[in-house]
Amino acid sequence: MPLIVHKYGGSSVADGDKIKNVARRIAKARDEGNQVVVVVSAMGDTTDELFRLAYEISAHPDDRELDVLLSTGEVVSSTLLAMALGTSGYKAVSLTGAQAGIQTDSSYSRARILCVDAERIVSELKEGNVVIVAGFQGVTQNMDTTTLGRGGSDTTAVALAAALKADECHIYTDVEGVYTADPRLVPDAVKLDKVSYEEMLELASYGARVIHPRAVELGGLYDVPILVAASFSEKPGTIIAKEASMEVRNKVRGIAHDTNVAKITVIGVPDQPGIAMNIFEPLTRANISVDTIVQNASIEGITDLTFTVARNELVKAMSIVEPVAKSIGARECTANSCLAKVSIVGTGMENAPGYAARMFRALYGENINIQLITTSEIRITCIINEDRVGDSVRALHKIFELDAT
Amino acid sequence: MPLIVHKYGGSSVADGDKIKNVARRIAKARDEGNQVVVVVSAMGDTTDELFRLAYEISAHPDDRELDVLLSTGEVVSSTLLAMALGTSGYKAVSLTGAQAGIQTDSSYSRARILCVDAERIVSELKEGNVVIVAGFQGVTQNMDTTTLGRGGSDTTAVALAAALKADECHIYTDVEGVYTADPRLVPDAVKLDKVSYEEMLELASYGARVIHPRAVELGGLYDVPILVAASFSEKPGTIIAKEASMEVRNKVRGIAHDTNVAKITVIGVPDQPGIAMNIFEPLTRANISVDTIVQNASIEGITDLTFTVARNELVKAMSIVEPVAKSIGARECTANSCLAKVSIVGTGMENAPGYAARMFRALYGENINIQLITTSEIRITCIINEDRVGDSVRALHKIFELDAT
Repeated sequence: MPLIVHKYGGSSVADGDKIKNVARRIAKARDEGNQVVVVVSAMGDTTDELFRLAYEISAHPDDRELDVLLSTGEVVSSTLLAMALGTSGYKAVSLTGAQAGIQTDSSYSRARILCVDAERIVSELKEGNVVIVAGFQGVTQNMDTTTLGRGGSDTTAVALAAALKADECHIYTDVEGVYTADPRLVPDAVKLDKVSYEEMLELASYGARVIHPRAVELGGLYDVPILVAASFSEKPGTIIAKEASMEVRNKVRGIAHDTNVAKITVIGVPDQPGIAMNIFEPLTRANISVDTIVQNASIEGITDLTFTVARNELVKAMSIVEPVAKSIGARECTANSCLAKVSIVGTGMENAPGYAARMFRALYGENINIQLITTSEIRITCIINEDRVGDSVRALHKIFELDAT
Repeated sequence: MPLIVHKYGGSSVADGDKIKNVARRIAKARDEGNQVVVVVSAMGDTTDELFRLAYEISAHPDDRELDVLLSTGEVVSSTLLAMALGTSGYKAVSLTGAQAGIQTDSSYSRARILCVDAERIVSELKEGNVVIVAGFQGVTQNMDTTTLGRGGSDTTAVALAAALKADECHIYTDVEGVYTADPRLVPDAVKLDKVSYEEMLELASYGARVIHPRAVELGGLYDVPILVAASFSEKPGTIIAKEASMEVRNKVRGIAHDTNVAKITVIGVPDQPGIAMNIFEPLTRANISVDTIVQNASIEGITDLTFTVARNELVKAMSIVEPVAKSIGARECTANSCLAKVSIVGTGMENAPGYAARMFRALYGENINIQLITTSEIRITCIINEDRVGDSVRALHKIFELDAT
């Protein structure tokens, strides 16, 4: 009997009616002759509510305790979904991360999965149960509960699919799949039938919020085909798999954008060894991710250092960088929080010149100023003013002929 | 170092401020040189809210799933209390029932504790931690979460005190101890400094809601001295221990009352073997507890059968009894839901005649009609009309000179 893993996000299980809708979808998959393992997130804004409780008690809640607290959100939704299935006549059992054998390291709030001991899941499947696993959580060797951090439930689903050698892994969300660009910005955007892990990884990392890059990476590593589709419709969605169609007519596959971008510039830094280390080490310790870094050519031993951080971490980042900048003799620090990234992504770009030039031309044609540029083998990203994101994405979508896919 | 167990009920941890208050009390116990294990209930009306969610999904939610769902309430409060202690500079760790080693049978919603494997608690205490245990829950051999049913958190606390050979077990609640009668009915009621397990068991079973009888029974079995006191004051409370003072001047120790009483009478039953079985077996299967049972002397082969149930189960009980009564040829069924029990309790009553007579005389003096009578070795209970409860309790309190203790 085929085995499939379904994952439903928080908005898909936000209330009783939505949970019943998800139960119907699972029942259908069961009726079609599948064994089904389901991963659920916490209902709606439960996680925010639990955070609020914790911060009412303490300005710096203990890491371990916070993880146990947050993990209850997914336990609640998993039991309710199991009840909904039971009531419809389908045998179902909920399992916590610990019961499901999701073993992690002990990095509370951002634990990494070490392995999955799927014995309990396998025996419940044999009993004829639909197995509902609380997402986003695991357990240390010491039997302490951990949470997996961002993208945790997506990652749980892909990890289970890999461990169980599932035939399919379906990530159900509130969009219908992966598009050539955000349909809210580009009405002509086209849903992609298939993308490769590498492309999805770049798209997800650079703003397409349909699935977390961590889950995509894991899928690629264990070769788990992932279907991304909507929980509220029956449309086919997008398959993320080993390689896209061999006959990719268009080598740019999609345009990603991200408006959670802020830029910090340290001006007038004496250009000497150790400067970058002095600035970036304290940020790393504060768990702030730095994205693009640009250092200008030095003029008379003085240089400027520019980098980007997530906009919601700008205040914290500035509070760390300013004293450091002062101590290393920099002239000043400036910040700009009204920025955005736009990226073109496609495996076809590899070893094929000319994409960057076409991208810059399109932006120039719209009179959009490029502040920073960063690239990977299959992606080119420009950082621009936030108010020009829509124009940029539409111009890029057009110049790379994505509406004609 | 002395080891004490504290238990705080839902109203003591109902919000952030109350949790901080509880943390201060624990900190004080720690400062006084104790090791402390704490058992907490779910915050305020969390459990009701979780029930509501479950019944929104299903009219008959699955037992196992319901237990997992409800258990999250105590997990939430235990983590918040641990955070509050941590913030105040006291090392603390929360444990679920499973982590605390509370092993139960698999009777979901009313599991019984089989044993406590206290290894993890002991090692956390050695590390210098205050150990906060989520009450009301345990785990089966198969690692499935169970809840302990009514009085579950009280029972968790006493079971842990027994397993850890704790020096004291403190049950903190919203009353200041055990009184000779409910102070809301009897302004002269006196707080008892000490009562025996047997007396407390009868008082608790017959309406004194300060501690659950199940926890008292366990305390008696393992000889755990239990202090019942208020979480909002520093007053000394009541000790429940092996035996009350040897010089108990007054042999009636307290008056209990309970207004959650309804009576069902099956009239005109043919008096033949199997009648009682036919009526009570379906009630047991429906998990309805029957309390007092009275069968009249048979007249010409026809008898009446009267019994009491909790008032909130009357409708369900009638729906079961009526068809049965019909099938065994009874004339009719009647119900009365406006009843109450009043009881006098005291180990001194054992082997000492005359208490019943004094009790009946006191009620007669107030012109109160007794509908049913039931007794144990250390208790006499009369079932009366609910509207006379106050008068009864005051009359009994007076005739047995309890205000003069």
